[in-house]
Amino acid sequence: MDEEQPLLQDALKKISIMELLKKLCSLGGASGDELAVKKFLLNHIKTNQKNWKVQPAIIQGAGFQDCLILIFGRPKAAVFAHMDVVGFTAGYQRSLIKIGGPALVDGTKLTGKDSKGKINCEMMVIDKEDGTRKIEYIFDREIDRGTNLTYKQFWKENDKYVQSCYLDNRLGIWNALKLAETLTNGAICFSCFEEHGGGTAGYLARYLYDEYNVTSALISDITWVTEGIEHGKGVALSMRDGSLPPRRFVDQIIEWAKESKIPFQLEVENAGGSDGTAIQKSDAPVDWMFIGAPESNVHTPYETVHKKDILSMVKMYQYLMKKFHA
Amino acid sequence: MDEEQPLLQDALKKISIMELLKKLCSLGGASGDELAVKKFLLNHIKTNQKNWKVQPAIIQGAGFQDCLILIFGRPKAAVFAHMDVVGFTAGYQRSLIKIGGPALVDGTKLTGKDSKGKINCEMMVIDKEDGTRKIEYIFDREIDRGTNLTYKQFWKENDKYVQSCYLDNRLGIWNALKLAETLTNGAICFSCFEEHGGGTAGYLARYLYDEYNVTSALISDITWVTEGIEHGKGVALSMRDGSLPPRRFVDQIIEWAKESKIPFQLEVENAGGSDGTAIQKSDAPVDWMFIGAPESNVHTPYETVHKKDILSMVKMYQYLMKKFHA
Amino acid sequence: MDEEQPLLQDALKKISIMELLKKLCSLGGASGDELAVKKFLLNHIKTNQKNWKVQPAIIQGAGFQDCLILIFGRPKAAVFAHMDVVGFTAGYQRSLIKIGGPALVDGTKLTGKDSKGKINCEMMVIDKEDGTRKIEYIFDREIDRGTNLTYKQFWKENDKYVQSCYLDNRLGIWNALKLAETLTNGAICFSCFEEHGGGTAGYLARYLYDEYNVTSALISDITWVTEGIEHGKGVALSMRDGSLPPRRFVDQIIEWAKESKIPFQLEVENAGGSDGTAIQKSDAPVDWMFIGAPESNVHTPYETVHKKDILSMVKMYQYLMKKFHA
Repeated sequence: MDEEQPLLQDALKKISIMELLKKLCSLGGASGDELAVKKFLLNHIKTNQKNWKVQPAIIQGAGFQDCLILIFGRPKAAVFAHMDVVGFTAGYQRSLIKIGGPALVDGTKLTGKDSKGKINCEMMVIDKEDGTRKIEYIFDREIDRGTNLTYKQFWKENDKYVQSCYLDNRLGIWNALKLAETLTNGAICFSCFEEHGGGTAGYLARYLYDEYNVTSALISDITWVTEGIEHGKGVALSMRDGSLPPRRFVDQIIEWAKESKIPFQLEVENAGGSDGTAIQKSDAPVDWMFIGAPESNVHTPYETVHKKDILSMVKMYQYLMKKFHA
Repeated sequence: MDEEQPLLQDALKKISIMELLKKLCSLGGASGDELAVKKFLLNHIKTNQKNWKVQPAIIQGAGFQDCLILIFGRPKAAVFAHMDVVGFTAGYQRSLIKIGGPALVDGTKLTGKDSKGKINCEMMVIDKEDGTRKIEYIFDREIDRGTNLTYKQFWKENDKYVQSCYLDNRLGIWNALKLAETLTNGAICFSCFEEHGGGTAGYLARYLYDEYNVTSALISDITWVTEGIEHGKGVALSMRDGSLPPRRFVDQIIEWAKESKIPFQLEVENAGGSDGTAIQKSDAPVDWMFIGAPESNVHTPYETVHKKDILSMVKMYQYLMKKFHA
Repeated sequence: MDEEQPLLQDALKKISIMELLKKLCSLGGASGDELAVKKFLLNHIKTNQKNWKVQPAIIQGAGFQDCLILIFGRPKAAVFAHMDVVGFTAGYQRSLIKIGGPALVDGTKLTGKDSKGKINCEMMVIDKEDGTRKIEYIFDREIDRGTNLTYKQFWKENDKYVQSCYLDNRLGIWNALKLAETLTNGAICFSCFEEHGGGTAGYLARYLYDEYNVTSALISDITWVTEGIEHGKGVALSMRDGSLPPRRFVDQIIEWAKESKIPFQLEVENAGGSDGTAIQKSDAPVDWMFIGAPESNVHTPYETVHKKDILSMVKMYQYLMKKFHA
């Protein structure tokens, strides 16, 4: 039995904790449409923060769109967790238009709401003779133009794995909420639009740099199981994806991670991006690194993460956020 | 006869008004080369503002490149209208290089000016055997390297339609100038570079946020007639194109638009962008929505817009800009 | 013998000067990994600035990542020279992942360093039957994940040409250092990440605008020999590449360049980008133009530049930077 088993007992088998993750994964909230998620988080924070080590300042409202920042003590580093998920917009004549990069699988169940009420429909993928592909919904009535649809949740859980739609990135959110319980110095940003071109991580980073001199960011997000990254081998520290984080910063974080004895894997991919890419391209002079558990079945209703990797992620964030103030 | 017919009489049949639009469409001004357009607007504003309800502050010069901002009263929202148009740069050996995404039609008439004088030439589109395409100009002499060429104007107008090069976006400019006549609170930005990668809407939005706390933007630009958007059915309120505007903001604007009883159409496209995309990707935390009349023959010398849609656009902007201060 | 021959004698044949360029080209420093280059420059500046006409303020550290700014007098314009070069990251199972756009030539010699020591390896390019291409390294051991590899240097020099890896952009750096010797008013920015998506030129430009009102930027970088740009015909003034610089600014610079009598060529390309593109897309309202010597064998270990073009580049920068204060 390895060292984190008792903690696994404590942390991951408590129904209350997995219930929070399950709830988070069920909230919908496609890119641009994060308001309900923000409201859920605000309510969760206000209800639970009395049990946290430090009561954070809550920054939100005009000038932050639907984003939310928590400030604990005197932050030197910030954690970014995006609230939005992939999905679809209902277009003209039963067409579906992608929000972000959802997997296109015939028969996938989608849910939403429009002026006529609740929607439970199904995706149809039509491969045309000319090689193009059209996506439509099958439903007993037409859906209002511009209505957002997201995956219907099928939650599954056993001793090893959690499976649900939207572990990307509700598990990154969940990780940030777990971190919040014991954080004494640091910022947590709940961002929007990450799955569809970004647009908020840059100004959040800039705000934290201007107001608090924050020059370090950890991206609390979910990555992919690939030929180099396996389930159950620990949280992935990404040395690169499509974007390159600053090497000086990467080297420092990896040194700290080694020192922590918490299991982790080094990721080196040639594609993909995150709020880290958005910070990189913004006018904020902020170092960043992506640190997150890997999942299989990416952007499907069946995203799957190993519980060991969840635990390793939480512990790694707790450890690293302290190191910035050591 | 529907309710706006008398106004159509008043507004659109007055030769003086259509003459202004015709003139605006004839100014050239490819992306990066907006100085002459800015000078024309400055002159128009200085000549006409005495008849406006409120005299705006005019912001321009160092720190704004070739952009122009008008501040009316205490703005909460801004209108963005881009001054630039698509066109071509003369390259080496009679080649033409695209500025933005002009339509490539053999025989299209182009105009410009270089060190040797005025240019009236013709575009030749050469489809090569290897599948590539080359664009050249046909002219009786070589054109200076780096000379900009834009469409020659062929203006056409009847009771229903206006047709010209560059209704995109001189009609958006015209709409902003009409709005200026009665605006009491609000900002109007005349931006550059929209057709070729952007680069000014972001800092204009940031300036207005920093100085005036402006967190709302309406994009006064021209969209496309598609399977979902028809001529004559009213201004298009775009729920999305390639980019997603914030849903909370979109819902608010649509609610106001319904309340207005002004005819409009809801657009839901999967591609395209505007100054809204640029604001989205900038470090300005500003909500935005694209609201504009639809055109056919996009990016050709024969862009066509229905006069009813022009009227609906002007009235919608007048209505919405008041609502931000209601 | 043309007028710059004596100066060529003086400037380019001095071993000490070419030795500096040779050294700069040997430093590695792929995008994101510029720290060693910055340290070299800091040391060079501290050692040599006593001989400069003006002692610059040196701006660096927190809030500037690995970038470096020199402020001479009261700057109105800034020179941007990027420190990073193209290269590769070692991935899983001997794969190489591109940093920026290096040429993929089988057998290219690469160097680097990991936890097991110094690396001298070779690139293997594998064209698969399905049309895809894989890049691997050939070395007698596995290389640590995430290790950066850059070209091994093969320096060659004769009366006319210099040949080395990484003249792009160590020659732009060298040009900036030569300019520094006599500069009285102006800023010099040594930027990062230019070859791989950018991420620093924007905030450097914004800092200089906010603090010093700098609204002009010259991009000291290396361009391509093409059908329109030849070796030995002088520094290239780029009227456009994939991005468009502001025409008003371009016209001003070309007027000054003509007045200078220094040989130059006008470039008009349809692709490519630079720190100028990054400034354009940033929230800094800064005019920019790319001005640099052309090279052949772009992004290979054998980049080649004509010495006349180097001299023309240095003289042009000296001339233009004075004109901003004339």
